Amino acid sequence: MKTKLATLILVSVFATQFATSQINEPVVEDFKPSSLNQPGKQYPQVNSERRVRARVVAPQAQSVTLDFLGGAKYPMTKGDDGAWVVVTRPQDEGFHYYQLVIDGAGVPDPGTFYFYGGNRWGSGLEVPAKDQDFYALKNVPHGQLRQTLYYSKNADAVLRCFVYTPPDYDKNLTMRYPVLYLQHGGGEDETGWGSQGKAGLIMDNLIAQGKARPFLIVMANSYVPGSSYAFGGRPASTNQPTAGAPASGTNAAPSRGAIGPGGRRFDFSAFQRVLIDDLIPFIDANFRTLADQPNRAMAGLSMGGMQTRTITLANLDKFSHIGIFSGGSIAPSDVPDMDAFKQKVRVVFVSYGSRELGGDRGGGRGGFGGDPKANTEALKAAGVNSYFYVSPETGHEWQSWRRSLHAFAQLLFQ
Amino acid sequence: MKTKLATLILVSVFATQFATSQINEPVVEDFKPSSLNQPGKQYPQVNSERRVRARVVAPQAQSVTLDFLGGAKYPMTKGDDGAWVVVTRPQDEGFHYYQLVIDGAGVPDPGTFYFYGGNRWGSGLEVPAKDQDFYALKNVPHGQLRQTLYYSKNADAVLRCFVYTPPDYDKNLTMRYPVLYLQHGGGEDETGWGSQGKAGLIMDNLIAQGKARPFLIVMANSYVPGSSYAFGGRPASTNQPTAGAPASGTNAAPSRGAIGPGGRRFDFSAFQRVLIDDLIPFIDANFRTLADQPNRAMAGLSMGGMQTRTITLANLDKFSHIGIFSGGSIAPSDVPDMDAFKQKVRVVFVSYGSRELGGDRGGGRGGFGGDPKANTEALKAAGVNSYFYVSPETGHEWQSWRRSLHAFAQLLFQ
Repeated sequence: MKTKLATLILVSVFATQFATSQINEPVVEDFKPSSLNQPGKQYPQVNSERRVRARVVAPQAQSVTLDFLGGAKYPMTKGDDGAWVVVTRPQDEGFHYYQLVIDGAGVPDPGTFYFYGGNRWGSGLEVPAKDQDFYALKNVPHGQLRQTLYYSKNADAVLRCFVYTPPDYDKNLTMRYPVLYLQHGGGEDETGWGSQGKAGLIMDNLIAQGKARPFLIVMANSYVPGSSYAFGGRPASTNQPTAGAPASGTNAAPSRGAIGPGGRRFDFSAFQRVLIDDLIPFIDANFRTLADQPNRAMAGLSMGGMQTRTITLANLDKFSHIGIFSGGSIAPSDVPDMDAFKQKVRVVFVSYGSRELGGDRGGGRGGFGGDPKANTEALKAAGVNSYFYVSPETGHEWQSWRRSLHAFAQLLFQ
Repeated sequence: MKTKLATLILVSVFATQFATSQINEPVVEDFKPSSLNQPGKQYPQVNSERRVRARVVAPQAQSVTLDFLGGAKYPMTKGDDGAWVVVTRPQDEGFHYYQLVIDGAGVPDPGTFYFYGGNRWGSGLEVPAKDQDFYALKNVPHGQLRQTLYYSKNADAVLRCFVYTPPDYDKNLTMRYPVLYLQHGGGEDETGWGSQGKAGLIMDNLIAQGKARPFLIVMANSYVPGSSYAFGGRPASTNQPTAGAPASGTNAAPSRGAIGPGGRRFDFSAFQRVLIDDLIPFIDANFRTLADQPNRAMAGLSMGGMQTRTITLANLDKFSHIGIFSGGSIAPSDVPDMDAFKQKVRVVFVSYGSRELGGDRGGGRGGFGGDPKANTEALKAAGVNSYFYVSPETGHEWQSWRRSLHAFAQLLFQ
């Protein structure tokens, strides 16, 4: 089920690139190592045309392929030195998941750092973006990204989340802060926003510029035990103590759901119980939060956006700010009581990558759940403080979501 | 240089296993997935004899090898299903780094989480230990592991460390805490102690049992720009915002050094400057520390132990507790002024894995820098509060260092 969801989400964007690709055209020879390479590793590289040059030494291999997650596959060519090499077509700006396929084995590229996406820890590379300054590492005051373990009564397990605390959190010990609950997508986990999502650096830079109010961000894993859309187990991460918990089975009848791509219905009730009954009370008890509805937001990308939509609509007494990134939208007809909604909800923010919204490379994702721009404008016309944002020249990928967080954060708790 | 160090450190222990290995003996069929596997991944597995069964699907491969870092290499055998499989000899209890070699390409096993060791992000597996309860995840109050970015004047770069804060740190906002600076080994980085080292869980459990005083642990990367034993760049990690910094060249003449295996001399002066001049002041300014010598400890494993020895001996006004895990020892002749040393140093703790100390599987590592047990006893006879600990049936590996931290932590700041 989970694999199918990830596949559904990913195939639409790159449908036109799915076929095996090869290029036979001149390339600009200004390749530099990706910023996400391991120390000392020269490959993969990216040039000013946004082409990727990958290389792996595999002298006895019969075939090696560069395989972008949900995207194009590029057969690599063996040189006299036993190294396999390929140069790709130009890629979108930002972060891309990929793997190598060596004689049929799908494995991470030994040159890169690893990231959780597509239900696996795999390679990632970074194509420099024109606007990369907003998530650049600078010598400004930095917040902390805190690995935090909490006991969930609903899961009967110790689970892990990450909490971003802003730079001044440990300086002014009487200050209390609003909280954003920020969710990953299908096949991802609680590490995504702090790593490839650059959430901490985005916030540090916004706060240093005075463009966002300091707030906490809580990043939890929605694949809680009991999720009907999850594996049997709970994902954990590589470079921290893991907090694995055994599965407690799957839910039978969805009590609450969301309609996803292809009309598929997802049941987010197990995660909702953990979030509402266990995680929020834990955070309010263990961090200096402003623990009320006006100071609590929820947002997420893709499946996390679907979860945000479902959970906030069912819990308007808990959340006042709603962010849905590449995960549907809210139409006036989705709101049972518009007067109550307008009174309680301060911001509705809906975003997509431009390539998701149709056109020659789009897959029509924007249409899922109704046209998101039309829905958001109708919500605004009904008197809700609504925003629709489009990330230029990106698809269903992290650059769209980094930009979405950057835009959304500036609207929060004002 | 760095690669040579890592190799030197690792080869000695497993020298007798270095040859290509194959087993043709009956095995107990009670294999279970390693606790460090990715969610849903069934391989590698470990049985009650501590044998490892690895498996990877690579239908077109000509040869696949299971390659323990610095240890045995096991050729795998292809089955009719296109999967390559091997069962190993019994391994030591605890954590082991490894990779797969597929037709000449050294790559991570797609089944596991990834860990930084041997100058690479690679696979790890866990052999259950008889004493694993001391680092088990339990429903006790948990501390946090905080990714913290700090500006280093000496490196002219924003660097990363992890800070463990004990469970009550955010509860009692007037309390101040002692600090342990805890270093990784050669070819590793600042993620090691919090991940494969289980430092947070070890401390959470000790504190819950009342066996250790709560203190902060700061885990920094000693491969700072300018290190003569480092790569050109600074390692960073996968699942966090990276804090890469360009190299600023190498040091010419070592001003302070340590004698390592083979009589090799290492220059830790660049790291010492960052630690003493930049990191300690940052920590004392940004965390609620007891910022004086009696409340500051340093410890490390392997190369980190050598650094601890060099840096504490040169800075007795800064550190009162010294821990050297598999990284040499301190003889009375190393101490220029024994009266001053006795007055300032509260604890000297030296440890090794039993297999490092000679015998049929040992490589004589214990002898490097003089016999560590004899040195520690001589220091004790001279009036220093000294401890020598041996981890049973382990070598130069993380299970020795988990146990060393567990023992050392109970002696700190008493």
